[in-house]
Amino acid sequence: MNATNDICRSWLPFLPGDPAETVRCAYDMARSELNIARESGMNLPQIILNLQEDMGESFRIAKTEDGYQVSGGEPGVLYGTYRLLMALYAKEKVVCGTTPCKPFYGLRMINCWDNAEGTVERGYAGMSLFFDGGRLSYDARRMRQLGRMLASVGLNVLCINNVNVHDPAHLLIEEEWLPELARLADLFRPFGVRLMLSIDYAQPIRHGIPTADPLDEAVQNWWKKQAEMVYRYVPDLAGFLVKADSEHRPGPFTYGRNHAQGANMLARALKPFGGWLVWRCFVYNCMQDWRDTQTDRPKAAYEHYAWLDGRFDDNVILQIKNGPYDFQVSEPVSPLLYAMPQTHLAVEVQLAQEYTGQQIDLYAMAPMWKELFRDLPAQKVMAVAAVSNLGRDWNFTGHPFAAVNLFTYGLMAWWPDCVEDSESLMRLWVKLTYRLSEEQENTLVDMLLNSRSIYAKYAANLGLGWMVYPHTHYGPNPGGYEFTPWGTYHKADRNGVGVDRSDKGTGYAQQYPEPFQSLYNDPAACPDELLLFFHRLSYDHVMKDGRTLIQRLYDDHFEGLAGAEHLAEQLATLDLPEPDAAEAHKRMQQQLHNAREWCDITNTFFHRYSGVEDARGRTIYP
Amino acid sequence: MNATNDICRSWLPFLPGDPAETVRCAYDMARSELNIARESGMNLPQIILNLQEDMGESFRIAKTEDGYQVSGGEPGVLYGTYRLLMALYAKEKVVCGTTPCKPFYGLRMINCWDNAEGTVERGYAGMSLFFDGGRLSYDARRMRQLGRMLASVGLNVLCINNVNVHDPAHLLIEEEWLPELARLADLFRPFGVRLMLSIDYAQPIRHGIPTADPLDEAVQNWWKKQAEMVYRYVPDLAGFLVKADSEHRPGPFTYGRNHAQGANMLARALKPFGGWLVWRCFVYNCMQDWRDTQTDRPKAAYEHYAWLDGRFDDNVILQIKNGPYDFQVSEPVSPLLYAMPQTHLAVEVQLAQEYTGQQIDLYAMAPMWKELFRDLPAQKVMAVAAVSNLGRDWNFTGHPFAAVNLFTYGLMAWWPDCVEDSESLMRLWVKLTYRLSEEQENTLVDMLLNSRSIYAKYAANLGLGWMVYPHTHYGPNPGGYEFTPWGTYHKADRNGVGVDRSDKGTGYAQQYPEPFQSLYNDPAACPDELLLFFHRLSYDHVMKDGRTLIQRLYDDHFEGLAGAEHLAEQLATLDLPEPDAAEAHKRMQQQLHNAREWCDITNTFFHRYSGVEDARGRTIYP
Repeated sequence: MNATNDICRSWLPFLPGDPAETVRCAYDMARSELNIARESGMNLPQIILNLQEDMGESFRIAKTEDGYQVSGGEPGVLYGTYRLLMALYAKEKVVCGTTPCKPFYGLRMINCWDNAEGTVERGYAGMSLFFDGGRLSYDARRMRQLGRMLASVGLNVLCINNVNVHDPAHLLIEEEWLPELARLADLFRPFGVRLMLSIDYAQPIRHGIPTADPLDEAVQNWWKKQAEMVYRYVPDLAGFLVKADSEHRPGPFTYGRNHAQGANMLARALKPFGGWLVWRCFVYNCMQDWRDTQTDRPKAAYEHYAWLDGRFDDNVILQIKNGPYDFQVSEPVSPLLYAMPQTHLAVEVQLAQEYTGQQIDLYAMAPMWKELFRDLPAQKVMAVAAVSNLGRDWNFTGHPFAAVNLFTYGLMAWWPDCVEDSESLMRLWVKLTYRLSEEQENTLVDMLLNSRSIYAKYAANLGLGWMVYPHTHYGPNPGGYEFTPWGTYHKADRNGVGVDRSDKGTGYAQQYPEPFQSLYNDPAACPDELLLFFHRLSYDHVMKDGRTLIQRLYDDHFEGLAGAEHLAEQLATLDLPEPDAAEAHKRMQQQLHNAREWCDITNTFFHRYSGVEDARGRTIYP
Repeated sequence: MNATNDICRSWLPFLPGDPAETVRCAYDMARSELNIARESGMNLPQIILNLQEDMGESFRIAKTEDGYQVSGGEPGVLYGTYRLLMALYAKEKVVCGTTPCKPFYGLRMINCWDNAEGTVERGYAGMSLFFDGGRLSYDARRMRQLGRMLASVGLNVLCINNVNVHDPAHLLIEEEWLPELARLADLFRPFGVRLMLSIDYAQPIRHGIPTADPLDEAVQNWWKKQAEMVYRYVPDLAGFLVKADSEHRPGPFTYGRNHAQGANMLARALKPFGGWLVWRCFVYNCMQDWRDTQTDRPKAAYEHYAWLDGRFDDNVILQIKNGPYDFQVSEPVSPLLYAMPQTHLAVEVQLAQEYTGQQIDLYAMAPMWKELFRDLPAQKVMAVAAVSNLGRDWNFTGHPFAAVNLFTYGLMAWWPDCVEDSESLMRLWVKLTYRLSEEQENTLVDMLLNSRSIYAKYAANLGLGWMVYPHTHYGPNPGGYEFTPWGTYHKADRNGVGVDRSDKGTGYAQQYPEPFQSLYNDPAACPDELLLFFHRLSYDHVMKDGRTLIQRLYDDHFEGLAGAEHLAEQLATLDLPEPDAAEAHKRMQQQLHNAREWCDITNTFFHRYSGVEDARGRTIYP
């Protein structure tokens, strides 16, 4: 398949070609999609679409004598149509009922980290879908296909540019680029997808205002004027996303202001237009001295924000990165999510496999979000955001199986109650994407289900993270972060490994409410997968299962490698279509190499420190 | 000083401005330079120039009634003129005599690793002096100044392009670029400097020949034809420099041929024109598996080449990198230099401070070459090559003091007998470059003299190397190379550190003749500065001076840091002119930071392994 000739249909193979360019609203899109599906050969029963404007994003599917009726608002009726089509194509039970199906989280966002010159920060699926050569540049057909993919799983906000706003992406809110941006918004509108823009907090300074101080009237007025102009072009823009005072980005700290003052100023500019101001809470000291054992990076977000609860305007959303460190394989839920009951919160996760295999190693995330959503406080968390795993590669996601992460993220964000059933969501993706025998379908679902635990075992077991190369974030480099300024240390030595974050250590565990605080504070209670995140333990520490820590480290690494080998065997049994098969096999060969390196290198790393031999006599290299 | 307005005169301040463009030979250049020096205000006695063609590069300075007579050939008379002018300016004794002063090494080369797009591989003094934007591009005035600098210390070959020949630098031997190359050669000719070119071994393939097999007649003929064309444009080209079968470069191994076959084929193409074929011996496995403890990279050059002794044509020079590993701080002389008595050899050193502080940290190399030339076999070593530390920075070398390395390299290559006196060479550079009080002159000489040992103590003591970041080669990253494919491991663990290269280990020491073999093979005899290059020792190993290895590691690191602090204090006492002062101070601040990081990080690194506390109770961070 070649992206220039045909566009990957991803998990929507029954929607070939391109919806008509003339379609302007979700209801019309739903009608159009039904026609396309019928024309593609799907044997559909009668389907009646019933637009009920007051239902908004909600939808309801009812059985009729000859088929189904889909009721819903704009864009709910389209969501319902996709769900119905997917269920029919996959031959799954259609969930009908009298209660409307409504989204749990109001904003279900994708954050693209795309730069204007066309690169994607932490992108593993090719160049940007939206930018090239320092300007907006996209294939309208691919935009509509992306719109389908997002709407089919209920995602409704697309932030198209990197939170690190490098020039000239700042022009996205300037008159020069706004007409083109409006055209892009037009493409996504019929799918119920609203655009969002990352902005540069210091933008007024580019316009001759000597400051970006949020309490300065000229600054406030500039943003009001600017927002008015942006909304003139894109009246349904979801809002602005801001990374301020983080990793060398400008922000209110420069002017001695706190982040409530900074965020509210921008929120007030957006308020008249119904826009959200989404403020990232990824603030920490990225110039830490490795000698400093008092500063503990996972504590930073809580320390910066918790005391500000209640001070944010009602159209501000604080977007809290999860985990508290970054996007490592095994982290506890960010404690800040429990600490701001009077503030609108969003939880930020990452589809891009920055630390989870870079779309080479297989890593299906549904079980990860299942745990996250299970532990997430209902409170005021009203939005979710995921860093995009999308790019210009023919299949949008590099690894053809990486699409499962976008798919399951959307459906879980819509309806977290389904989190007990991440397996069935992944199975649905498999059924929609490939036509496999039942046995092969089971095999692929099994691969996806196990992939996370396999990766964690060889790359980041027991809550260890950061054993990767700085900058590329690919590994294995078990000591690579020990002397960097990033605050990410495990401090392995001849006696043990890990950072004590209990009340005897940095006190990080105290940021949690009960029952988490007690659970995390005590190494005997702490879940194994977070043990070395919260505790420093000696190699002879006896784990819950009776093994020593060092033996468990060795065992996990060997098991992870064996797991990767098993994945490769499983993959070989699948009759995948091309080019998916070639892509998946090529990446699997690389994963096998990676897994062996991870296993052998981390084992050697710990053996050089501990001097303890493997109890089962397997080879650990000197 | 701004390079666009004036050109740095480096150690030739009495030669301001620019020699006339019309000067075509060294004798005329000598006359011109005398005039310029007089016009600059130097109070010169009568100086008679006596061109004696048959003296070639040699010269003789004789006292006359009113001054001096300089006799010499082309370009010897110019060399003598520069030496005389430098001695007079520095108020040093002019060495007169009846025996001509002649160069010990026939070819005294500078190898620039400059790429056509203008970057310099391992360059720390700005962009390329010769290339920009994919073509030859240079400032003729700066070329003449460089010619002065090279000729004043007797350097006679300048290879302008990187041994890694990236497109489009391969065009240097094609008709498209040759007219421009000829103009560049014209600029250097009056200074006795001949150009040399790095070539791509696979170049015939670009011309439709299906192979680069050295035994293929079409290949041989192509090179003959090509050499003929090159020499038509640059009749005095010194020859070609080749990096083949090394770090992914093409070479004869591809065709099952050995390097004598590969080199001789090229040498025969150059022979009719008097050109040299310089063949680098930097061949090793750069894809080593870190688990492989049999392969030992320093052994590679000897294994590849020693058996070929006697099989190379007489216009082939094997250029042997020193040390055998790479350009680390402390390495033994390459054993290959002793192993090929029937072959023309060049020793390759590095002025670019790749592993020695990157022209930020102070590192004066004269004492290093003193050791090298002391241990170098007379035999057939007939040439020296140094990787350039030059670039487009206003002062040519980034750090203003880094020029001392080019200066002393040239003079030592001319006359290795002066190696017992590297101090006086450095003092001469100081006298020529700056007008300091005697006390300050002593201070700067002291700084230069101590700089290498200070750097070695904090960054690479006892023969340890490679504790830097892969790729950038800057540090400290003590475990950074342990799991890479580069064959550069120290394998520190909880018991000890180092690789056993004695006859009980990899056997590398056996590549040396006596007395080196016995010296290196025995840890009790091995010089301290090479101890961990040759031996794996436990932390409690007792050194010659009675200290344990671990204590010596700690002591050296602390002493190195203290040394850097002392350098900074010394620098602060110097009345340097601007912009030298600002450049030197800026770099010294960075060096102080670097030295502290090296000291603390390497101490922590070894403490985490050994668990041994510092006997003097100094702080080692956890």
